[in-house]
Amino acid sequence: MSRTVITGGLVVTAADEIHADVLVEDGRVAALAAHGSDAAAGWRAGAATLDATGKYVIPGGVDVHTHMELPFGGTFASDTFETGTRAAAWGGTTTIVDFAVQKQGQALREGLDAWHAKADAQCAVDYGFHMILSDVNEHTLKEMDGLVEEGVTSFKMFMAYPGVFYSDDGRILRAMQRAAGNGGLIMMHAENGIAIDVLVEQALQAGRTDPRHHGEVRKVLLEAEATHRAIQLARVAGSPLYVVHVSAEEAVAELAQARDAGLPVFGETCPQYLFLSTDNLAEPDFEGAKYVCSTPLRPREHQAALWRGLRTDDLQVVSTDHCPFCFTDQKELGRGDFSRIPNGLPGVENRMDLLHQAVLDGHLTRRRWIDIACATPARMFGLYPRKGTIAPGSDADIVIYDPEARQTLSAATHHMNVDYSAYEGKEITGRVETVLSRGETVLAGREFTGRTGHGQYVPRGTCQFL
Amino acid sequence: MSRTVITGGLVVTAADEIHADVLVEDGRVAALAAHGSDAAAGWRAGAATLDATGKYVIPGGVDVHTHMELPFGGTFASDTFETGTRAAAWGGTTTIVDFAVQKQGQALREGLDAWHAKADAQCAVDYGFHMILSDVNEHTLKEMDGLVEEGVTSFKMFMAYPGVFYSDDGRILRAMQRAAGNGGLIMMHAENGIAIDVLVEQALQAGRTDPRHHGEVRKVLLEAEATHRAIQLARVAGSPLYVVHVSAEEAVAELAQARDAGLPVFGETCPQYLFLSTDNLAEPDFEGAKYVCSTPLRPREHQAALWRGLRTDDLQVVSTDHCPFCFTDQKELGRGDFSRIPNGLPGVENRMDLLHQAVLDGHLTRRRWIDIACATPARMFGLYPRKGTIAPGSDADIVIYDPEARQTLSAATHHMNVDYSAYEGKEITGRVETVLSRGETVLAGREFTGRTGHGQYVPRGTCQFL
Amino acid sequence: MSRTVITGGLVVTAADEIHADVLVEDGRVAALAAHGSDAAAGWRAGAATLDATGKYVIPGGVDVHTHMELPFGGTFASDTFETGTRAAAWGGTTTIVDFAVQKQGQALREGLDAWHAKADAQCAVDYGFHMILSDVNEHTLKEMDGLVEEGVTSFKMFMAYPGVFYSDDGRILRAMQRAAGNGGLIMMHAENGIAIDVLVEQALQAGRTDPRHHGEVRKVLLEAEATHRAIQLARVAGSPLYVVHVSAEEAVAELAQARDAGLPVFGETCPQYLFLSTDNLAEPDFEGAKYVCSTPLRPREHQAALWRGLRTDDLQVVSTDHCPFCFTDQKELGRGDFSRIPNGLPGVENRMDLLHQAVLDGHLTRRRWIDIACATPARMFGLYPRKGTIAPGSDADIVIYDPEARQTLSAATHHMNVDYSAYEGKEITGRVETVLSRGETVLAGREFTGRTGHGQYVPRGTCQFL
Amino acid sequence: MSRTVITGGLVVTAADEIHADVLVEDGRVAALAAHGSDAAAGWRAGAATLDATGKYVIPGGVDVHTHMELPFGGTFASDTFETGTRAAAWGGTTTIVDFAVQKQGQALREGLDAWHAKADAQCAVDYGFHMILSDVNEHTLKEMDGLVEEGVTSFKMFMAYPGVFYSDDGRILRAMQRAAGNGGLIMMHAENGIAIDVLVEQALQAGRTDPRHHGEVRKVLLEAEATHRAIQLARVAGSPLYVVHVSAEEAVAELAQARDAGLPVFGETCPQYLFLSTDNLAEPDFEGAKYVCSTPLRPREHQAALWRGLRTDDLQVVSTDHCPFCFTDQKELGRGDFSRIPNGLPGVENRMDLLHQAVLDGHLTRRRWIDIACATPARMFGLYPRKGTIAPGSDADIVIYDPEARQTLSAATHHMNVDYSAYEGKEITGRVETVLSRGETVLAGREFTGRTGHGQYVPRGTCQFL
Repeated sequence: MSRTVITGGLVVTAADEIHADVLVEDGRVAALAAHGSDAAAGWRAGAATLDATGKYVIPGGVDVHTHMELPFGGTFASDTFETGTRAAAWGGTTTIVDFAVQKQGQALREGLDAWHAKADAQCAVDYGFHMILSDVNEHTLKEMDGLVEEGVTSFKMFMAYPGVFYSDDGRILRAMQRAAGNGGLIMMHAENGIAIDVLVEQALQAGRTDPRHHGEVRKVLLEAEATHRAIQLARVAGSPLYVVHVSAEEAVAELAQARDAGLPVFGETCPQYLFLSTDNLAEPDFEGAKYVCSTPLRPREHQAALWRGLRTDDLQVVSTDHCPFCFTDQKELGRGDFSRIPNGLPGVENRMDLLHQAVLDGHLTRRRWIDIACATPARMFGLYPRKGTIAPGSDADIVIYDPEARQTLSAATHHMNVDYSAYEGKEITGRVETVLSRGETVLAGREFTGRTGHGQYVPRGTCQFL
Repeated sequence: MSRTVITGGLVVTAADEIHADVLVEDGRVAALAAHGSDAAAGWRAGAATLDATGKYVIPGGVDVHTHMELPFGGTFASDTFETGTRAAAWGGTTTIVDFAVQKQGQALREGLDAWHAKADAQCAVDYGFHMILSDVNEHTLKEMDGLVEEGVTSFKMFMAYPGVFYSDDGRILRAMQRAAGNGGLIMMHAENGIAIDVLVEQALQAGRTDPRHHGEVRKVLLEAEATHRAIQLARVAGSPLYVVHVSAEEAVAELAQARDAGLPVFGETCPQYLFLSTDNLAEPDFEGAKYVCSTPLRPREHQAALWRGLRTDDLQVVSTDHCPFCFTDQKELGRGDFSRIPNGLPGVENRMDLLHQAVLDGHLTRRRWIDIACATPARMFGLYPRKGTIAPGSDADIVIYDPEARQTLSAATHHMNVDYSAYEGKEITGRVETVLSRGETVLAGREFTGRTGHGQYVPRGTCQFL
Repeated sequence: MSRTVITGGLVVTAADEIHADVLVEDGRVAALAAHGSDAAAGWRAGAATLDATGKYVIPGGVDVHTHMELPFGGTFASDTFETGTRAAAWGGTTTIVDFAVQKQGQALREGLDAWHAKADAQCAVDYGFHMILSDVNEHTLKEMDGLVEEGVTSFKMFMAYPGVFYSDDGRILRAMQRAAGNGGLIMMHAENGIAIDVLVEQALQAGRTDPRHHGEVRKVLLEAEATHRAIQLARVAGSPLYVVHVSAEEAVAELAQARDAGLPVFGETCPQYLFLSTDNLAEPDFEGAKYVCSTPLRPREHQAALWRGLRTDDLQVVSTDHCPFCFTDQKELGRGDFSRIPNGLPGVENRMDLLHQAVLDGHLTRRRWIDIACATPARMFGLYPRKGTIAPGSDADIVIYDPEARQTLSAATHHMNVDYSAYEGKEITGRVETVLSRGETVLAGREFTGRTGHGQYVPRGTCQFL
Repeated sequence: MSRTVITGGLVVTAADEIHADVLVEDGRVAALAAHGSDAAAGWRAGAATLDATGKYVIPGGVDVHTHMELPFGGTFASDTFETGTRAAAWGGTTTIVDFAVQKQGQALREGLDAWHAKADAQCAVDYGFHMILSDVNEHTLKEMDGLVEEGVTSFKMFMAYPGVFYSDDGRILRAMQRAAGNGGLIMMHAENGIAIDVLVEQALQAGRTDPRHHGEVRKVLLEAEATHRAIQLARVAGSPLYVVHVSAEEAVAELAQARDAGLPVFGETCPQYLFLSTDNLAEPDFEGAKYVCSTPLRPREHQAALWRGLRTDDLQVVSTDHCPFCFTDQKELGRGDFSRIPNGLPGVENRMDLLHQAVLDGHLTRRRWIDIACATPARMFGLYPRKGTIAPGSDADIVIYDPEARQTLSAATHHMNVDYSAYEGKEITGRVETVLSRGETVLAGREFTGRTGHGQYVPRGTCQFL
């Protein structure tokens, strides 16, 4: 039996800050004991020891929104499961939940099988799948039940992207009804894409082709409207709802109102909405294209509402929506037509650090940092307490985090397979030092010690907030 | 060194449900280890063992609102610190925070000393003090700073009870300003007592003297109004606010709105508002007097709003406002004049059980049960993680709870020093089996094994939500 | 020159109640003078005199929502312009605005011409047209400009009835943008028809075919949702919005919120929503079919919200949505399938009386009665002050109303061409005694004295609330 | 019989814009007739004629909030009833309602008699009285009934000014209950004066003595709080409520919310809040003192909310709160201590012009101008239709208004007895040309042709919105 003791650190979970040693046996957390207790003293014999004195001992991050190798607009997201999960490990994230894609006309099974094939034996850390549901019909509704059974318990739908992923309100209602019955969770891209496409067409016709117009046509009101509509449809269906990548203050207000009424409605935001803004989209020389994603970046003043939403629990999760496209050749497809810029930003490596910086900036407490980045995503998608916390019985997905190290984010030093960083030059305090995945050290002393294929597929339970 | 191991139970905290053994060393929790782990196995040698198989292992309850021996309306609450804390232990509560009373004209110190004298060497479980601030002036404002320093970090004020505890808005504002500076937390009894006293006088003049009129004159709108006003005053002062014994749906709405805006506003309710209603106040033959407390019981439909508020975290704490008066001779002081009925209900013994019943009734999750009854009260009033959780380093205030035992609440069997039960005959599933206070067994096998004077005074830190 | 003096009555307009004689010269109101003034005395010589002593002298009603001869579900509304406008006159309504229908694929012009052909030389009272816009494209958008120029200044769109009148959000947005530019007013049937059609299909599949299921599938939430969405789209377009036949409390709340924010958003309800309910839809033996219209009748408790909305000006207009289908042969088309019941109720004759009854019932003041039934509809659709008031210069469309006469509503006595009354047996106090249309007496002493073809087409200006 | 015809003008009332001649007989409006009608033509013989061609013919203004000769802070408002009502006439206002003051300890009757004595035979235009209720007790509650009977139907109370006019919530509740029974209307100065006085004391102690601190201590939140509280007390009492001089956006929001719920709650604002701001309070060299009034001027951004409230009818009345104090010797009492600056601004002469300018600025329609300045104040306080409109039977209080004349507001040219203008140098388009008070010309060709003592006391009916 392999045994490792992490000594001397401050164990920070969503719930507690404990001065305790952590005992890992056979890939799982066996026990925690107070520093200096007899119990702790007894463990050291025969065990590997990791000294975390002066460091935080935190659960590995759980990033529930990534798109490795996503086909989009004639190209593919530039991180494979291999490169993307390795970057995740570098950034202290030990579980991702990626989106298998059903193409219209396909069975869900086909899409899921394809994504299993892409990920199998490729990953550096553990992974699960959501299913993108782009074609709702009698057959796919039935398939949903089976997928929930086998551990794909969440289904993403789109009110945007007509002709690609878009579902109309009737299809959404049917899927929600099904989810209400089988325990699935509908994840919603909430933008009124039908109206947005009119504005896109008008902008292009008027010669407003620059990336910043991407932000202008995808209006705040049309995100808020779609959020409101999704909530009402969920009420009609009697189902829960998880709104992905919330970016607008007005959308947060819709969530807050629903939650005050006790509805099972949840919201996620992403670091790009918390740290970047339309100022970035307006960067000259087409550099704004680096920041094109949907929902779009918003004017800076929306950031305060997002931070507040995270504090008031009107937003519960920060994921990355990691979906990188290289500036050269990929983002550049949209020169002269912002609507052709592949949508998405890299970020899976930066999330834990950026949110730690938010702790230092006074936006979040340490415990809330772990809550929104580890524990709540795990609970939301049926992975807790295996993932998302450090407790007896949990997987030993553990990060030793140095809260005082300083680093500068840059494409020159990051490990994601993309030629730019959305946070180029940003100075951060805090850094991942050591990462364990199921007890195996995958990062140590700023060296990657893991391996392709270590990461396992994790079937998930249903949402634990219901 | 004394060592005890609690084996085989499901450890339920506000954050987690863990199948773990708990090791207690010298009155504190030393470690938790997964059932069956080598670590756990190693502990049993030389330790006392408590078998919790099939039971819950939960933190001892933290009741932050009790009034032992409170003088009120010419009489005294019938539980002393001795009888009241013993009853608390019976009910699985291992920490109370009682209210020291400043009388108008007195220094805070005088009041605090008096309460120390009452409690000293009397208590079965640990205790702390809030300070009732009934006279705001330059001297008492300065005293507040000192009290915060020494561990009395919260100050209760009254918008009700003119001529007794009442403070006008100017005094409230001054105290809030002071608290904003020294880290204290203002606790507010939020009812517009000035307006209520008009309605009381009018009711009595009109011959409406029955206990049910107590509920009718203390109107929902006047609780909501005062709640709103207290929030606005706190905003002006830049201070946090904790509203005690919230009973009305409209008051919850005020709190929800403030919290959506990110204000540091908190709310507490009590079991009587969750389980009883104006139907009880209307019981014939003056029996309604048993249920006279302020804020008053509300019509039954308010209960749903309170449960929802607890689920949405618009209410954070359930305390008891334990303030018992015997029906005979005490409650009877108000025959013919409801305004003379001493205000208060017994409850310190029933809280943990009633809230467990709420879990079974579907109102709360198990974790939320522990959250609102143990962890959050402890955090709110600066006692966490010493109290309110089971984690390495915590005080070993631990309850072994049988979730399947059945009991019937009754004055015939309860241990509070009062001649009636507000829940007489109510059948409950779940019962406290064993209670440890700092590692000492104070209840075992439904026998009280503790002692008067075991309980220690606990100076408190400041609110941990700020 | 023809001259008529109406003497001795109480002139009630939206603004005033004046004890005045009214002088009509050549079809228009020439002057008002106080009873007993020299000015009034001077008028009587050589003038016809109508004695209104003890009566109200009110503006003729303006019903801005009728559907004469509307083709629907394979049949036609049973009132022609001839029979329908005659019934209007009987009921004290002297102007209607009917809906010309563009069929999908048609030009607006074709539809408008067809409606002119139906109405020309047929009407007993004056009439105008809105245009139903069911096909938004470059051509029809341009046509809108021309129609506004020639006096068809309002355009109705449908979020319901997919495949028939339905427009998606993109088409709605384009039409609103156009209206924002040309001064037109978009009138919206606000129900999420895409979602409703799913529920209809599910209800029918489950054998829930009775008329009452019409009310159950067309859910309150789906009216409120569509109302919210229409408002947001109008905000994006920068256009005003008029929501037709509001029936649900939650939809009123959406309007109220928009209006508090100062948005140019307006709402109409109809007598059927104010006086009838799902109780009627549930009448046995398929009688519920008589009450099938969309939006549907709601549970009785919504009525209070509608009355309140009329008082608080969150609703501004009461029209009839007059669209009669005989029970025999027409409503019966939907036996065994509620979705085949032609949607619509008769009512053009009953509106003024029902709203007067509402005055007696305490829901409205007399002035508000005239406001919502005459003045505001006229202002909303560019007819004021020619229609909707009694003032020097106005058309002499005047009703002498007996506020004390009693009548019983019944198909046996009404003049609409339909075999049932939605208000059969309802007793009303108040009755139209005499009706002038442009100075001509069309109803006198409960005899119809008008003629087919007296009514003229009235081109309209744009909305006067902008 | 005296007869006057006003010819050729556009008669603008709250409801209508009519091209009509107006016939005045014996001090009242006898008739209106369309320009060019035979009826109009017949009037000219033997009548005095006022040519209003190209002008507006509007009702005389009704200013329901003035304080002539008010004793305040050891001095008196500088306009007497003689000078103040003459200035009103100059400004097109033909009715004022002033506030008789009950001093604490006095009977209402004493105060009312004193105000009658001040006004009797002094006024240039008609006047009525509200009663300031500063001492609520059994005697004064009974007096309220009598005052309502005799035409003093409204009672002002203060939540501000402790020790002077302040009433606590109990007294307010009692007065509201009484008003609910006798038809009186409670007018509320809604500021939390108890809290404000704490902030005043703290500001002065800290050396913040400049006039701008008057605005800073009287916080927006404390106006909004008091507004909310007054509404809740009115709900408890079942009475209507009229909130005077609303200045803060947040207070408007409280009114809007109450009105959406259908409560009989009304709000007034004043030109100073619409046109001036804290920028004026911050004028150097103690000039800010000129703008000291309570509620205080607010930051400029509140103006938009007030205009919007006037448009959405969440505010219904614009009065002046005319209460002038000369800068020299009066305002100067507060040098070095802003709390000693007499509170109040001059404005009775400027209101109609400023609001006409608001029409030109796009804030209001012409009809809404007359509504908020004439018709609604008259209805609110039981003077309509005698005052506030031009209709057969109304008092011939008529203004011929030149909408194109230009003027510059200045103390050099105004007629109020005060040594400064709050709008010094402001250029206005529109000017009062001719004023009739009960048919007598009191202003003609920019000459005052009226006389001291022409103005009569007008007993009032109760609020006409209930």
